[in-house]
Amino acid sequence: MKIVVDAMGGDYAPSEVVLGAVDATVLDKNVEVVLVGKSAEINAVLNECEYDKKRIEVVDASDVITNDESPTMAIKLKKDSSLVKAFERLMSDESASAFVSAGSTGAVLAGAFMKVGRIRGVSRPALAPVLPTLTGNGMVLCDCGANVDCKPLNLLHFAIMASSYAQAMLGVEKPRVGLLNNGVEAHKGNELTKEAYELLSASGDINFVGNCEARDMLTGDFDVVVSDGFAGNVALKTAEGTANLLLKLIKKGVYGGGLKTKLGAAMLKPVFKDVKTKLDFNAVGGACFLGINKVIVKAHGASKRGAISASILQAQDLASKNVCEKIREGVTAANARQAESAEE
Amino acid sequence: MKIVVDAMGGDYAPSEVVLGAVDATVLDKNVEVVLVGKSAEINAVLNECEYDKKRIEVVDASDVITNDESPTMAIKLKKDSSLVKAFERLMSDESASAFVSAGSTGAVLAGAFMKVGRIRGVSRPALAPVLPTLTGNGMVLCDCGANVDCKPLNLLHFAIMASSYAQAMLGVEKPRVGLLNNGVEAHKGNELTKEAYELLSASGDINFVGNCEARDMLTGDFDVVVSDGFAGNVALKTAEGTANLLLKLIKKGVYGGGLKTKLGAAMLKPVFKDVKTKLDFNAVGGACFLGINKVIVKAHGASKRGAISASILQAQDLASKNVCEKIREGVTAANARQAESAEE
Repeated sequence: MKIVVDAMGGDYAPSEVVLGAVDATVLDKNVEVVLVGKSAEINAVLNECEYDKKRIEVVDASDVITNDESPTMAIKLKKDSSLVKAFERLMSDESASAFVSAGSTGAVLAGAFMKVGRIRGVSRPALAPVLPTLTGNGMVLCDCGANVDCKPLNLLHFAIMASSYAQAMLGVEKPRVGLLNNGVEAHKGNELTKEAYELLSASGDINFVGNCEARDMLTGDFDVVVSDGFAGNVALKTAEGTANLLLKLIKKGVYGGGLKTKLGAAMLKPVFKDVKTKLDFNAVGGACFLGINKVIVKAHGASKRGAISASILQAQDLASKNVCEKIREGVTAANARQAESAEE
Repeated sequence: MKIVVDAMGGDYAPSEVVLGAVDATVLDKNVEVVLVGKSAEINAVLNECEYDKKRIEVVDASDVITNDESPTMAIKLKKDSSLVKAFERLMSDESASAFVSAGSTGAVLAGAFMKVGRIRGVSRPALAPVLPTLTGNGMVLCDCGANVDCKPLNLLHFAIMASSYAQAMLGVEKPRVGLLNNGVEAHKGNELTKEAYELLSASGDINFVGNCEARDMLTGDFDVVVSDGFAGNVALKTAEGTANLLLKLIKKGVYGGGLKTKLGAAMLKPVFKDVKTKLDFNAVGGACFLGINKVIVKAHGASKRGAISASILQAQDLASKNVCEKIREGVTAANARQAESAEE
C-alpha cells in the first residue's frame, strides 16, 4: 500500500514534508511513500537522511499550485504541478490508496473531486477534521467548509460518511451523531436543519442522538457532529479563535502581573502545555475529505515534520481499514432506503 | 422615563429581578421601574428593601410564561402573564421607553414583535449581544438567533441597526462592520453572504470593512459582525462552549497536579478571575432586540441582581440615546438608497 504525498504543499514544503515522510517510514515499517514535486529539492533533503530507499519513491513535478490561485483553474491548467501529478499517480497506481497534502485546501478539494472522483451515490464529498473534546476522545465535525450551501440529503450523507470515519479514527463502534443546531429541541432549526432532523431521525443507518447546540460540540457527548459547511466552518474557526483569545488573555494577565503571578505561571507551565496540546485543533492528523474514491488527507498548511508524518500514518490507517469501501456501502444502503420510502 | 421589567422572567425570578431593579434605582437617580408580575411576591421582596418608593411601581400579573411553551401561542393565550402585561404597559404608557426580561428568549422576541411591533422599514428585527474582545472594547454580534433563515437585505438592515447600537453601547463613532464568512476574500461565502457582501459594500450607510472569519470575530478588529441568526447562534455558542472547555481543562489539570501545581494555581487566581470576567459572555448587560419600536433588552436567564440592574441601566442608556429613532432613520435612508439603485 502506497501513500502519495504532495511534497510541495504547505508553508514548510518541501523540506518538512520530506522529513515527515522519512519519519513515517521509520515509525511504521509498512508505510511506502511516493513523494511528488521538484525532485532536485526533494532529493537534496533525502540525501541528508537515513531511510529505507525501497520505501520512498520520488516523482518529478516542475510546477506548484499556490493558495492564491483559483483552485479549479489551477487543477485544469497546471498539468505539471505536484498536486495534479500526485492525483494522476494516485489514479494510475492500484497500490496507491491514499493521498496527503498540506497545500491549498481549495486546490486539494477541487483536484480530488476532478481527478479522483466521488464515491458513487455520495451527493457531496465533505471535509471532516477531528476536534478535541473535554473527555479526550475527539469528535468528527463534518462538513467544515467544502459545501457552503447544502440540502438535507447532503447532511444525511455527511452523517454516514463521518460515522465510518469516526469508527476508524476514534475506535467507536456506534458513533453518536449530533446535528449542529440552534437549540436541542426537535422543532428547532432553520429550513435545512429542520428537514435534516427528520431525515436523520428516520435513518436506520446511523446512531442519531439529536440536535447538538454549538456550546456542547466539544463536551464529548457526540462522536460526530454534522453541519452544512458554512456553519461548520464558523464553529471550527470560532472554537480556534476563542481558545486562542483565552490563552492570550491569560498570557497578558501574567505579563501584566507581579512576581507572584509570574512565579505562579511558571509553576503551572506543565498544565498550560498539556491544555494547549489537548486543544490543538490540528493535532489529530489532518482533515479527511470524505466521499472521494481514495483516502484524501488534508494536513494543516503550517504542518512541520511531526504533523506530516502523523497525517501519513493516519492516511495509511484509514486506507487499511477500508474507510472508502465502508462509506460506499453505507451510502448505497441509505440511498436504497430513501428510494424505498419515496416509493411508499 | 420608565423601564418596564418582567419581574417573573429568569431562573431567579422574582427575588433577584426585584433586587436588581432596586439596585438600578439606587445606582441611577433617574431610573424609574415598573415591575410586572405576581404583586404579593414582588412586594414581599420590596418590603425588605430600602428604596425610593416613587420610582418603583408594581403592576400585578397572575400568570407566567415558561421556557417550555410555544412562544407565539403563549403570547396569544396567556393574557394575564407578566410578559404580556408588561408589553401592554410599554405600549399604553408614553413615558415607558424600554423593557427588560430575563425570561424565555422565544417569548420575549415573539411578544416584542407582536405587541410592540417592528420599526417601519426594518425587514427583520434581530438579537444582538455584545461579546468580549481581546482589546476589551467589545463587539456587537447581530443576529444571534432571531432569524435562522435570512435574505441579503436582512443582513444590510442588521448592519445598520447594530451600527446604531454599537455607537450607543461601545461609544464608537463609525463602527467597523464585518460580515461573518468562511474566508476573508471578497468572493468567499455561501449564496447568502456572497450577495450580502455586494449589498454591504455598495451601501454608503455603514462602515463596512469586509468579511470576518469566525476566528477573528473576537480580536477587536470589528465593532459589529453581521450574520444570519443560525450561523451567529453557532458562533456565539461555540465561543461560550470553547471558553468553558478551556477553563475546565485547566481546572482538571490543576486538580490532577501536585502541590506545586496547586500552589501555582492559587498564585494565578487573580489572573483567572480577571480572564473569566473579561470572557463573560453575559457581562455586558443583556442582548438587545434591535428593530422594535421601543428598547427591548433580553437579560440572560441565569441573571442575578447584578446582571438585572446592569440590564436596566443599559436599557435606560439606550432609550436616552434614542437608539430606536436612529435605527429608524438609518433604515429609512438605506431603503431609499436601495429603491433608487433598483430604479437605475
